[in-house]
Amino acid sequence: MQIKAVNGKGHMNLTEKTVESRQVFDGEMLHVFKDTIELPSGAPATREYVKHINAVAVVPLTDDGKVIMERQFRYPVGRTVFEIPAGKLDEPDEDTLEAAKRELHEETGITADEWICMGDFCPAPAYCDEVITLYLARGLHSGEQNLDSDEFLEVEKVSFEELIADIMSGKITDGKTMAALLKAQNLI
Amino acid sequence: MQIKAVNGKGHMNLTEKTVESRQVFDGEMLHVFKDTIELPSGAPATREYVKHINAVAVVPLTDDGKVIMERQFRYPVGRTVFEIPAGKLDEPDEDTLEAAKRELHEETGITADEWICMGDFCPAPAYCDEVITLYLARGLHSGEQNLDSDEFLEVEKVSFEELIADIMSGKITDGKTMAALLKAQNLI
Repeated sequence: MQIKAVNGKGHMNLTEKTVESRQVFDGEMLHVFKDTIELPSGAPATREYVKHINAVAVVPLTDDGKVIMERQFRYPVGRTVFEIPAGKLDEPDEDTLEAAKRELHEETGITADEWICMGDFCPAPAYCDEVITLYLARGLHSGEQNLDSDEFLEVEKVSFEELIADIMSGKITDGKTMAALLKAQNLI
Repeated sequence: MQIKAVNGKGHMNLTEKTVESRQVFDGEMLHVFKDTIELPSGAPATREYVKHINAVAVVPLTDDGKVIMERQFRYPVGRTVFEIPAGKLDEPDEDTLEAAKRELHEETGITADEWICMGDFCPAPAYCDEVITLYLARGLHSGEQNLDSDEFLEVEKVSFEELIADIMSGKITDGKTMAALLKAQNLI
């Protein structure tokens, strides 16, 4: 059966307007709000959401086709998560490339000759404003890891093909890691 | 330069233990906690995180290689987001396939003959427990849309190749949409 093209592009007014914004939690990392808004129909509604500083994530690819990965305990999901190196910006206006270089170096000791920006990843635009800028790093050089005192992670080198297979089998579930590796697959 | 395989697989204890759990916001959709935990080193630390019901997302692929997409205003990011059909489970233990069928039908009117599970997507395991189960739906049939009264969205049919190009150019930034379409690209 033929599927109809339902609505045209950009014909509807979809904008939700703020009526009142109220902060309900001001943490160190999470800043939570509950706003009263006006729907496109004019009816009132509420929106609960989190403000979170932006972040960066890096696919560090070796000359022999391997990726430097990290295994880290992620408390909200109660287990270790296998993911690409990533971290929050130090300041909201920090340059994302500088942040990517810093985080990769701190967490793995690695520096890179070549940096390719792979665009932005919004983890959960329905309830969080965070944007993670994705990078591919090549021409890697080893160095000294420099973790924060409260950071515990394991670094591993895995072949790119094995990681793609682990994404396809459902073994890798971290969102930014899936998107960044699959984008890199199309690039390289 | 050769990159060393830094640590072995699973040699470190990375587990963080709960010392005290405290709920700081109990909303309709977001349930926010600030826990005191014990790091692997034994030192104390805090973890702020969100409990959010799990969800589903669907790549509805037509016989002629097009995907049924949605344009929806996402208040936290202040703009319309172009994304695949998705929605929250009705109950925490709802079957994800049933939820995927329901959400696709409600939001687009479409039913599908073939459903392929593409695994789980964790949007933000560092601060949220949500898991989105991804599906590919084929053999599509048109029907009547049945939106909630507070749901406003525009449905569009776009070629799969155009969507992959829009992901690669950075135009599509929604995390679940990037991961699901790129996984589907490897499947089909």
